[in-house]
Amino acid sequence: MDNLGIVFLSEVVGTALLILLGCGVVANVALTKNKGFGGGFLMVTIGWGLAVYAGVIVSYNSGAHLNPAVTLGLVSSGATEFGLGVPVNAVSVAAYIGAQLVGAILGATVVWLAYKQHFDQEPEPANKLGVFATGPAIRSYGWNLITEIIGTFVLVFVVIAFGGGRQGESGGLAALGALPVALLVIVIGTSLGGPTGYAINPARDLGPRIAHFLLPIKGKRSSDWAYSWVPVVGPVIGGLLAGWTSAFLLPILA
Amino acid sequence: MDNLGIVFLSEVVGTALLILLGCGVVANVALTKNKGFGGGFLMVTIGWGLAVYAGVIVSYNSGAHLNPAVTLGLVSSGATEFGLGVPVNAVSVAAYIGAQLVGAILGATVVWLAYKQHFDQEPEPANKLGVFATGPAIRSYGWNLITEIIGTFVLVFVVIAFGGGRQGESGGLAALGALPVALLVIVIGTSLGGPTGYAINPARDLGPRIAHFLLPIKGKRSSDWAYSWVPVVGPVIGGLLAGWTSAFLLPILA
Amino acid sequence: MDNLGIVFLSEVVGTALLILLGCGVVANVALTKNKGFGGGFLMVTIGWGLAVYAGVIVSYNSGAHLNPAVTLGLVSSGATEFGLGVPVNAVSVAAYIGAQLVGAILGATVVWLAYKQHFDQEPEPANKLGVFATGPAIRSYGWNLITEIIGTFVLVFVVIAFGGGRQGESGGLAALGALPVALLVIVIGTSLGGPTGYAINPARDLGPRIAHFLLPIKGKRSSDWAYSWVPVVGPVIGGLLAGWTSAFLLPILA
Amino acid sequence: MDNLGIVFLSEVVGTALLILLGCGVVANVALTKNKGFGGGFLMVTIGWGLAVYAGVIVSYNSGAHLNPAVTLGLVSSGATEFGLGVPVNAVSVAAYIGAQLVGAILGATVVWLAYKQHFDQEPEPANKLGVFATGPAIRSYGWNLITEIIGTFVLVFVVIAFGGGRQGESGGLAALGALPVALLVIVIGTSLGGPTGYAINPARDLGPRIAHFLLPIKGKRSSDWAYSWVPVVGPVIGGLLAGWTSAFLLPILA
Repeated sequence: MDNLGIVFLSEVVGTALLILLGCGVVANVALTKNKGFGGGFLMVTIGWGLAVYAGVIVSYNSGAHLNPAVTLGLVSSGATEFGLGVPVNAVSVAAYIGAQLVGAILGATVVWLAYKQHFDQEPEPANKLGVFATGPAIRSYGWNLITEIIGTFVLVFVVIAFGGGRQGESGGLAALGALPVALLVIVIGTSLGGPTGYAINPARDLGPRIAHFLLPIKGKRSSDWAYSWVPVVGPVIGGLLAGWTSAFLLPILA
Repeated sequence: MDNLGIVFLSEVVGTALLILLGCGVVANVALTKNKGFGGGFLMVTIGWGLAVYAGVIVSYNSGAHLNPAVTLGLVSSGATEFGLGVPVNAVSVAAYIGAQLVGAILGATVVWLAYKQHFDQEPEPANKLGVFATGPAIRSYGWNLITEIIGTFVLVFVVIAFGGGRQGESGGLAALGALPVALLVIVIGTSLGGPTGYAINPARDLGPRIAHFLLPIKGKRSSDWAYSWVPVVGPVIGGLLAGWTSAFLLPILA
Repeated sequence: MDNLGIVFLSEVVGTALLILLGCGVVANVALTKNKGFGGGFLMVTIGWGLAVYAGVIVSYNSGAHLNPAVTLGLVSSGATEFGLGVPVNAVSVAAYIGAQLVGAILGATVVWLAYKQHFDQEPEPANKLGVFATGPAIRSYGWNLITEIIGTFVLVFVVIAFGGGRQGESGGLAALGALPVALLVIVIGTSLGGPTGYAINPARDLGPRIAHFLLPIKGKRSSDWAYSWVPVVGPVIGGLLAGWTSAFLLPILA
Repeated sequence: MDNLGIVFLSEVVGTALLILLGCGVVANVALTKNKGFGGGFLMVTIGWGLAVYAGVIVSYNSGAHLNPAVTLGLVSSGATEFGLGVPVNAVSVAAYIGAQLVGAILGATVVWLAYKQHFDQEPEPANKLGVFATGPAIRSYGWNLITEIIGTFVLVFVVIAFGGGRQGESGGLAALGALPVALLVIVIGTSLGGPTGYAINPARDLGPRIAHFLLPIKGKRSSDWAYSWVPVVGPVIGGLLAGWTSAFLLPILA
């Protein structure tokens, strides 16, 4: 397999694991009769943070973007190479983003299987959609967009400050190198996740939303396509801004 | 003592500590009058995650499997050696699994001693069984099995990606090398633990269930043997699948 | 840009990120309709701890004080150089503290933008102020001051014991080097945050209070200037005392 | 100052910080009107775990026992030297334990100062004592003793497996070397803290109990001396047993 193929596979696997564990914690907290039902927002943020942790561990070779906003942020920061020496160009960017979307749909499908009985017995359709896709606490597309831009900016700016998500080189340190990103995602959740549920990742929101649309989920509501552009456009803008900012700021600060 | 004997002892001690601290947190949260009573699912997942942490620390020499699904996953991944250069064969696999089961029964017995008064005064027999063995939120053997397969797959696949649970070599890094596994177990709990209580380890469920059956626990109910095969067969399947998958995927990704 | 300019920029960016994520978690927990509403004090302490984590990561070059009490504590400990070889003198101290205040005002402003709709719809003016500035649980200036002195003493004394907030040198270890400070801030919150909400940082309190005063926040109350000196004077005293104590104690103990 | 004097000072400072932050989290959760009031058992266990973290950081030179059960466990494990090359003998053991007790009384006194108004306004005397000393959920001296023995055994056995609480040697790793002990104390709390509130440290219980007895706390109840021997004798037995066990087990396992 050539390096672009490895990167594709790596991003599929990593993003699938991220979404399985990330949307999984929402299913546990939100769907009726689960042992973690009503477990609280802190549990959700820790679950998502460690979901990123696990995803980064298994997709080390691709640089573990797992997020189009990270990929695009690296582009706008002026990076010339992604993981495994793959050059930055339209094809490789498309490969990363395509793989992330495929992985996200896959991961969301497995969440549905793992929680099948709880989806079937859940009376409230909005809770089912909430497992897959984010939605605003107060619907206001402009302000929702701003919140997503701010959250994603923080994510991508600090991830680039970490060195693209790859600290250390092998063994124990590699495994710990995924920890900083996890901690960062936890705090973005606790601190900027209130208004929109912090998509901060177009694939994280769009992929599971597509899965929600396609899967034969019992008693589901519409997939709220009216809102779906916010958690795509916001993170893309936030990621690009963070890349540009990091390009002139991080050489000075880091 | 020969190396197989050391491995046996090591897995007994490590699994006993894992189960003491893991079933212990359930006792604290579930049994009447405890100071941690009603402490929530997040506390349970953190308790189990750090229980694995402590167990791995004290059984470093055996590779700290502490779980037949990990042992079998390593076998199906094509490993030829376990800890201390012990070769992979029927005898060593039996030694690992036997030791894990012995350790689990032992650990569960100490939980009973540590919480003796709380077991005695607990009015609800189901809560007593719940300290020892897992049970489904919605009983449906097929779907419960699938949930356990998925959870164990994630565990074993990522543990093998970590390098068999052993990162770093000595001193501080060795102690931190147990942290990644702990974080992974926390997130499997928060994110895939809702439907079945995440056994993800045949010894973790069967050992304490045997202890529940044998110990003279005041006012106990039956040990629910009808369900007992699910948290054994599911993790075994999940572990084997993860080993096979890792054998062709991890050389590419990690 | 000369080194003092870099230090200024670095402290602005780091403190802005600290306050964005720190005041952000309070907004999420305290303002109506947020997804993290009522998330609990533990979530607040974890949010603030990891806010420090993120802030330290992006302001590595200045030594990541992010807090006048840390700057002054280093002065009273007898330090002769800050980050990047900048000498300790009146100008550099003023640059650090000025940058921290600017960054804090900036960060608080972005919190307001990220939570704009929730500020607008929040009925209780005290909750809005609470996102920006700390306030006492039981108003008693003398005892509130003592609590802030104790909390800040612990912060600065242990941070200096860590080595001024800079452990390790690069890559993974640098990223993990921010973790000890984060853990310390979490525990100061859980353990000394009850009476006053643990400002333990004059810029953390005064900067956002100024932002609260200046911003056109809908339905806001007064900025409680009567209390505002406590979370400035207390941390300054605590930081200075910690610096002096560390100067004779740490050479012996650490 | 000779090395025994340094060890004494180091254990005083470290234990004082441990108790300040440890009893502090109980005060925050248990005393009326605190911002962390009712924060839950998980918050208490995290507070105590990170209290140990901070205490270990500042008492690195003495080996950071901070607990007579650790000191005695090291003795029974056959250690011949403590920190700084201080030989193990009656004088040095007395110095460690005496310093731990002095530090604990000191730390508890500062907790009282930090929470003074909340002690004054707290209506329930039992809550005030609970900030200082542990008490059983179900009073039964024999079983309470067993619970404390088990908890302390786990603590001391694993701490010795870590290498006496000292991992790594300097800088970032030293700071992270305190993390394993913190994680261990968290899990002992979540998992074995239900019945007795996990003293697992004679100085942690006796020192603050003496402080409770001596300090002019408004409206306090008796210091429950009838129970006070349990959290002293239990941890001493647990520590000695752990030392003996580790002496023959850890050379094989670790």
